[in-house]
Amino acid sequence: MEKINLMNDYNTTAHPRVLDAIGDAAGKRFAGYGADEETAIAAETVRRLAGRADADVHFLSGGTQTNLTSIGAFLRPHEAVVSPASSHIYVHETGAIEAAGHKIVNFPAKNGKADADSVRAVVESHTDEHMVKPKLLFVSQATELGTFYTRAEMAALREVCDAYGLYLYVDGARLANALAAGACDLGLETLAGFADAFYIGGTKNGLLFGEALVIANPLLGADFRYNMKMRGGLLAKGFLLGIQFRALLEDGLYLELAARANKMAALLTEGLLAAGVPLLTDTCTNQVFALARPDELSRLEERVLFERWGPCEGERAPVRFVTSWQSSADEIGRVLDCFRL
Amino acid sequence: MEKINLMNDYNTTAHPRVLDAIGDAAGKRFAGYGADEETAIAAETVRRLAGRADADVHFLSGGTQTNLTSIGAFLRPHEAVVSPASSHIYVHETGAIEAAGHKIVNFPAKNGKADADSVRAVVESHTDEHMVKPKLLFVSQATELGTFYTRAEMAALREVCDAYGLYLYVDGARLANALAAGACDLGLETLAGFADAFYIGGTKNGLLFGEALVIANPLLGADFRYNMKMRGGLLAKGFLLGIQFRALLEDGLYLELAARANKMAALLTEGLLAAGVPLLTDTCTNQVFALARPDELSRLEERVLFERWGPCEGERAPVRFVTSWQSSADEIGRVLDCFRL
Amino acid sequence: MEKINLMNDYNTTAHPRVLDAIGDAAGKRFAGYGADEETAIAAETVRRLAGRADADVHFLSGGTQTNLTSIGAFLRPHEAVVSPASSHIYVHETGAIEAAGHKIVNFPAKNGKADADSVRAVVESHTDEHMVKPKLLFVSQATELGTFYTRAEMAALREVCDAYGLYLYVDGARLANALAAGACDLGLETLAGFADAFYIGGTKNGLLFGEALVIANPLLGADFRYNMKMRGGLLAKGFLLGIQFRALLEDGLYLELAARANKMAALLTEGLLAAGVPLLTDTCTNQVFALARPDELSRLEERVLFERWGPCEGERAPVRFVTSWQSSADEIGRVLDCFRL
Amino acid sequence: MEKINLMNDYNTTAHPRVLDAIGDAAGKRFAGYGADEETAIAAETVRRLAGRADADVHFLSGGTQTNLTSIGAFLRPHEAVVSPASSHIYVHETGAIEAAGHKIVNFPAKNGKADADSVRAVVESHTDEHMVKPKLLFVSQATELGTFYTRAEMAALREVCDAYGLYLYVDGARLANALAAGACDLGLETLAGFADAFYIGGTKNGLLFGEALVIANPLLGADFRYNMKMRGGLLAKGFLLGIQFRALLEDGLYLELAARANKMAALLTEGLLAAGVPLLTDTCTNQVFALARPDELSRLEERVLFERWGPCEGERAPVRFVTSWQSSADEIGRVLDCFRL
Repeated sequence: MEKINLMNDYNTTAHPRVLDAIGDAAGKRFAGYGADEETAIAAETVRRLAGRADADVHFLSGGTQTNLTSIGAFLRPHEAVVSPASSHIYVHETGAIEAAGHKIVNFPAKNGKADADSVRAVVESHTDEHMVKPKLLFVSQATELGTFYTRAEMAALREVCDAYGLYLYVDGARLANALAAGACDLGLETLAGFADAFYIGGTKNGLLFGEALVIANPLLGADFRYNMKMRGGLLAKGFLLGIQFRALLEDGLYLELAARANKMAALLTEGLLAAGVPLLTDTCTNQVFALARPDELSRLEERVLFERWGPCEGERAPVRFVTSWQSSADEIGRVLDCFRL
Repeated sequence: MEKINLMNDYNTTAHPRVLDAIGDAAGKRFAGYGADEETAIAAETVRRLAGRADADVHFLSGGTQTNLTSIGAFLRPHEAVVSPASSHIYVHETGAIEAAGHKIVNFPAKNGKADADSVRAVVESHTDEHMVKPKLLFVSQATELGTFYTRAEMAALREVCDAYGLYLYVDGARLANALAAGACDLGLETLAGFADAFYIGGTKNGLLFGEALVIANPLLGADFRYNMKMRGGLLAKGFLLGIQFRALLEDGLYLELAARANKMAALLTEGLLAAGVPLLTDTCTNQVFALARPDELSRLEERVLFERWGPCEGERAPVRFVTSWQSSADEIGRVLDCFRL
Repeated sequence: MEKINLMNDYNTTAHPRVLDAIGDAAGKRFAGYGADEETAIAAETVRRLAGRADADVHFLSGGTQTNLTSIGAFLRPHEAVVSPASSHIYVHETGAIEAAGHKIVNFPAKNGKADADSVRAVVESHTDEHMVKPKLLFVSQATELGTFYTRAEMAALREVCDAYGLYLYVDGARLANALAAGACDLGLETLAGFADAFYIGGTKNGLLFGEALVIANPLLGADFRYNMKMRGGLLAKGFLLGIQFRALLEDGLYLELAARANKMAALLTEGLLAAGVPLLTDTCTNQVFALARPDELSRLEERVLFERWGPCEGERAPVRFVTSWQSSADEIGRVLDCFRL
Repeated sequence: MEKINLMNDYNTTAHPRVLDAIGDAAGKRFAGYGADEETAIAAETVRRLAGRADADVHFLSGGTQTNLTSIGAFLRPHEAVVSPASSHIYVHETGAIEAAGHKIVNFPAKNGKADADSVRAVVESHTDEHMVKPKLLFVSQATELGTFYTRAEMAALREVCDAYGLYLYVDGARLANALAAGACDLGLETLAGFADAFYIGGTKNGLLFGEALVIANPLLGADFRYNMKMRGGLLAKGFLLGIQFRALLEDGLYLELAARANKMAALLTEGLLAAGVPLLTDTCTNQVFALARPDELSRLEERVLFERWGPCEGERAPVRFVTSWQSSADEIGRVLDCFRL
């Protein structure tokens, strides 16, 4: 029997409506490199949803590519990124930002979330030209630990960024999961008002691939396509990104898929709590982090694909489950069975 | 009436068999980042076709990405690329190689082709540590001007590379078009024996996107996936590359599509020559470069999508036509009509 | 009255014997870029003192330049440095290593010193190609906090480096101060046996400027001069470095100057301890870190140039004093007076 | 008998007045990293001489370091340098600019000099985001071939730069030699009015080392010291640069030394022309390029240190002679003897 796949949210091709949209384009001719009609429409849709008629919108193939291209384009050589120690760019992008020349100054962050005090402390500890100049705050919404920023929390980050002249950049690989989280009061338009730049992730939410970058700060948008090409991120058949995002965004499919993934995660969370399994963080998106006993772990390893999340704490092993729009209540039930004798 | 599109060979989605292969995968679960079965099979197919059971094979999304990731991984900081002045990396990749830190030492090249004497002269003019150290010869097969290297020509390049300790890297964005050219005696296995690394382009030959990089020199393959991730080129749903390349390569579809494109270009070439239109280069692949008179140009601009190729020579304008597997004899005929009163 | 300068150990020109050596060279002609006789002799002296007849020796103008040139030359793009969080490259070189493309993975370090367990933990937490590959351990001897590694401690670092395939790089900006510290049993030859590369600092020990880099690992030395030139560190009048280092090293002047600086620091340490002033670290080199009460601080600010070392701890302010070969017992006495009513 | 050294203009320590100034500073204490009084005075002198009270002035140790730090700080990642193919950064700085991430777009240049038409043609050939964006014109005054720009020529370059939004950067490694050339009507103040940034070379004109960078465009100066530190060019004992430049500039010593070097070159030029020796370029600064017959070459090789300048033209070998303030008429006479039987 095939294992249940909660390893990640990018283990299938794409949602049928996305595949259909690509299928419908067969035989049609498109301009190259994103200069096509589909991409223009998708960009317009993004602008409309974000409530930013003036924003620059670009489509890229993946998150690391989007992060390194953006940050590389936005910063001068001596300027640095500030981010939680748990951030994807600090840990899991193989030094992509540093390879583009920029230090990431990290700080420990509870539940994967930056807070204004930590940012302030980091920036104030940088006193002169013998140290890098902090210039961009990087946060993820939802975070790498499945948590999210509320409207008030993001406003506080915006405030500290304003106080110190930092750009606020939001990695939205799982933005839809935050938007679809009932408890999250930070909507897309509000986010677009706070962030200098952010992206709406598609790869982890039903597309074959694709992230929609929104550059809300007009000072940062100049010549961005040069940087996309220079970093290898200007897809020849850019229209594929336009077609996919149009399908994902036009009828709210992106929120629907994220809500479905979140719901499955909520089911899992409830079951785990009911079974008395300790959780690492209190999440409302599509990632669940639990501490499994040895017997639970061995059952999980037999029946489920998931990720070990660091070294054991006592006898319990931290594990990560990621749900997606394709996860089912039945699957969640079978995962929970691993935790019940 | 829609214009005939000879602008490039990446203006449609993908060949039906490729789309079908993706469609067939719906609902299936795959390991991430190219660690899946489909990718393993596609890589094995590449190794078999190249006759290099030991080669490292990686799949990337585009040509610029493949070039910058490879060259960035292969060279030490002070080492430089040597390439014809017409090469894609020198002109049309927005300084991607330089952004990765490496100078490209260029030399003028007839018909877009490197020759051993030019390479030798370039390398010998680099005499000490005040100059970069030439370390990698970059050539394209087919070239950016639609020409190709014969077996003897590539052997001569290999020889000069051996003499000076250069790696030989072959950009194969249109490799299939060279392989399918009747006049070209340089087969895939032979090429794989000459080159330290090369790639088989898929984006311009029927895929949604994708290039298959072959690292034939075992000294160059170490830790390549780190470099893919670091440069933003490790696709989360890497299995999409495996699925597509499997469909393209397993039954020789890649040669079939290239042959079809070449045939349309040949038809165009013949027609142009018959009409007395001067050609810029003598090509047998899928690019045709012609010099159009003003009246021809204005008819072309009405009916055809194509690219202007630099400033006018006298009253004639250089133009580029690119055929693809979707070009038809009828379309070619209508293009030729623009050249006949 | 001029303030006593304990701000740093690079606030005067150079030792008279160094200046005399430069003066003696007036009118003489030298080959450029370090290809001269004086440089050859100085390099030979370094090799002799290090007991490494085969080592590559290069002279550079400053510490940051030496670090970025070396590490940039030694590492492949995805490889990372591991270092204590207090290391100079992590904090005080304005992201020079990251600007050369490499992440520095830091760990907290007691007294500024790396220990094998921390290094092991850092390396083992890097599990795959989604993270950088730790490849070089950076430590300073003496450390940025004035402490030093014993022979046994450095041997343990060598061992963990061997276990994980790391290079061991030692920043020796104040190496002479460690060598001259009575309590330090790690001699130059032993160090040269442990380290893959290290440098003997001159700027902070009596020279106008200059650091002598020793590349002990023959695999790392290839083409190093290319990297020096590329990074802007190949001095046109390289002979100035040769002349200075010859003067500094030939008669043991470097140890003599360091011993003098250390002795003044010891005098200061003794006085502070006698006065009941808490010290931040237990140092035997030429840096002393103390916690000053507000009244002491205000007297210090009147009479002494020194550095504030981070935020207050309670009411006490951390301060750093750096002695040099030009510090006098009288000066130390006057500094101590600031701590006595 | 020692050979006459016309190899370069950096083969002796420094002019006595410069050495004396350093000697006079013995025992004095200075602030680090160029924050001292001497440096402030030297910078003020530079501003006065340049007639730019508002300019940012920084002192660096060498030309390559100055070029890579400046250009790296001024340009965004996708922006490129435009320069003559003979420029120092294109040929003889080991790819330092490319290592900082920027392509140099070169064009052939007669006598080493850029002209507005070539610049215009280069910029206009860069049409979209698939190519780098030309943003900085790099020229040298005097040029690498000993020629210089007149006021009108530099004004024309300024004009083309304005037309296309390029910065104008002038490498002044041998600026004094141009300023001191009788035929050169482009004074320092005028140059400072044309250039966005330039430097006054000291290393090749009597200093131990040092270049004075003038950033005339206020948009380019921000955070420059961060970039100096990051690139390894912020000298700990920066006061050495201040002391030296003060000595060089305050009483016009820099022009006096350059005039002396130029005069010796003029003597050599006259003698060569009188002897019927063909010259490569018509220079009025301190470099002379001649074509030597085999017998002349062999006499030169016995008695003179000079540089071979590329491959033979027919039977004649191109050679370069560089005079300095220490060259004597007697030495020039003995060089000329090599050309007379």
